[in-house]
Amino acid sequence: MSLAARADRLAEVVAGEGLDQLIVGDLVRPGDSSPDASASARWLTGFTGTSALAIVGPRARMFITDFRYTERAEREVDGAFERVTASSRLLPELASHLEGRVGFDDAATSVASLGKLEEKLADGIELVATTGLVERLRRQKDEGEQEAIAEAARLADEVYESVLAPGLAGRSERQVARAAEARIRELGGEPSFPAIVAAGSNGALPHAEPSEREIASGELVVWDMGAKLDGYCSDCTRTFAVGEPGGEARDVYELVRRAQAAGLDAVRAGVGGAEADEVARALIRDAGHGERFGHGLGHGVGLEIHESPRLGPRSEDELLAGDVVSVEPGVYVGGSFGVRIEDLVVVTEDACRNLSTLPKELRLVD
Amino acid sequence: MSLAARADRLAEVVAGEGLDQLIVGDLVRPGDSSPDASASARWLTGFTGTSALAIVGPRARMFITDFRYTERAEREVDGAFERVTASSRLLPELASHLEGRVGFDDAATSVASLGKLEEKLADGIELVATTGLVERLRRQKDEGEQEAIAEAARLADEVYESVLAPGLAGRSERQVARAAEARIRELGGEPSFPAIVAAGSNGALPHAEPSEREIASGELVVWDMGAKLDGYCSDCTRTFAVGEPGGEARDVYELVRRAQAAGLDAVRAGVGGAEADEVARALIRDAGHGERFGHGLGHGVGLEIHESPRLGPRSEDELLAGDVVSVEPGVYVGGSFGVRIEDLVVVTEDACRNLSTLPKELRLVD
Repeated sequence: MSLAARADRLAEVVAGEGLDQLIVGDLVRPGDSSPDASASARWLTGFTGTSALAIVGPRARMFITDFRYTERAEREVDGAFERVTASSRLLPELASHLEGRVGFDDAATSVASLGKLEEKLADGIELVATTGLVERLRRQKDEGEQEAIAEAARLADEVYESVLAPGLAGRSERQVARAAEARIRELGGEPSFPAIVAAGSNGALPHAEPSEREIASGELVVWDMGAKLDGYCSDCTRTFAVGEPGGEARDVYELVRRAQAAGLDAVRAGVGGAEADEVARALIRDAGHGERFGHGLGHGVGLEIHESPRLGPRSEDELLAGDVVSVEPGVYVGGSFGVRIEDLVVVTEDACRNLSTLPKELRLVD
Repeated sequence: MSLAARADRLAEVVAGEGLDQLIVGDLVRPGDSSPDASASARWLTGFTGTSALAIVGPRARMFITDFRYTERAEREVDGAFERVTASSRLLPELASHLEGRVGFDDAATSVASLGKLEEKLADGIELVATTGLVERLRRQKDEGEQEAIAEAARLADEVYESVLAPGLAGRSERQVARAAEARIRELGGEPSFPAIVAAGSNGALPHAEPSEREIASGELVVWDMGAKLDGYCSDCTRTFAVGEPGGEARDVYELVRRAQAAGLDAVRAGVGGAEADEVARALIRDAGHGERFGHGLGHGVGLEIHESPRLGPRSEDELLAGDVVSVEPGVYVGGSFGVRIEDLVVVTEDACRNLSTLPKELRLVD
């Protein structure tokens, strides 16, 4: 889908909501956003900077940035948009272009920004809270986006192999994590989040931060990482054994592997996020480890590492063709070890396409 | 100032505002914050994670995180705080502990979060918008914080030297920037922002992104970078000449150097941010380059790379002892070259203490 087509599609949604315009972009720290907060503006306009607001409606295609990014906006922003450089701050510039009933995203707007915007509005303009209108369109990835995510996933897969090559025993969790992040950068990407490398009992903490703990023989190592390439994220987890991990760890590993395979089998358009989760969770529960799988089965991935939809017991989302989601069951045996196996897949009408290429048999490394 | 003393000081401010409690932390993406968004919670409690809300008031010291961080909270959060792990999401847990007149920060709270919080409130609890109560306390850095920032600045200074060692000519801007960021990480820090390395005419763009452009002999190179160490940021800019840059570039360089020195001389407690800016700006304006200094003189630096106070023509801030601010005039000659020189200083009662150790005479490198 071209950028112009995205704007047209969004304009239809805006009209369907009874609005004249929708503000797209970060109204929490306008002009000083994080890349994540700028994701919707990027998706809509192609702009890769962090100071960006857009106005879209049936009769509006406007892009606003500040003087630092005028040239970049000329180069990157789709020609369907009129490009404007704010003379000082973004909010007053934005306010001067609003007309009619104007939607803003309530999760991307701070109470302070809303107040400032209201102060500057001309008479007759009405601000209306909306939720996730752009995020909903961003869910289903077009072919170019799927390829960008697949490319980021391939990069991360390559990083696993090269960082694994000298073995894990005797290296600290932090050394391995920092080596992986450095290798991602050498290959032209950025980490899509700080890598998790958690050995032995640390593996039982689903979001352990890599520590100075030395990885020892006989331990399982949960290694969760992703790359960001051209703005798009990947996300993958593998659990490796450093030498022979023993029977209990092998049993749990096989259980998680079966649960992950079952989760993958369940993912297709039309299935509920709770339903897919339950398929994997039932296997883990039936094996007596139900209490040890304390997070959801997965989440959408795209310009942000966590997007819609959610796969989990309380999810009300239904999977759609083009969703890119993680499938990542885990079992965490407190004080002992953990296992998580995660792939990234594109949801299709009748199944899913796996973007992760690493094998999932238990791999024993040095 | 101990963490407990910070909480006591904040409780006084809260009482002074006629409030029973203040919510501290990110109410835009609670549970999924960026490190920047978590800075106030970190300053107050010592917690280094990204899922944190605190409640402070004359009779309240509470810290809330989720299951991922229970153990870290036990380890890091000051003992003055009762530590609570939310059973699911942070907002409902937060709501259940609120009492009386409760302040929230309007810049750190999304319209959506405010709505969700209001839905969950018991009768008789009133939410009151406040602005920057914690940020105002964070401005004046105690000795430990000053030392942390100085240490980050020393690390960055060391990185300049080691990345400069092989010379700049023939390397791309991006290669130099990536080498600098990699070296910061090798030394145990993180970049406090993506490094800017801008050669020749790219130097005329104050926030140029490092490009594939090869740095050539005869060019000026604007190099702006900082390190983050133990949570605290540094910020520094030097402009180097790759071989002889010629008379015009030398003249502009000396002008910026004089303006920067004058700015440093002007910085002390009691001086206005606009006043300090004007001292440096007047020199640049008198030399006929007034239109070529299109940004403010500086900004506060601490747990975030941009904090209060601001030094610039429209600033209404007055400098206070303990403020840590950048002093960074620049002249940008469009299509030709740019010069910026930036130090980081601690404001004292009668002057300022410079945390940057690199010389400022024009340095010719290979």
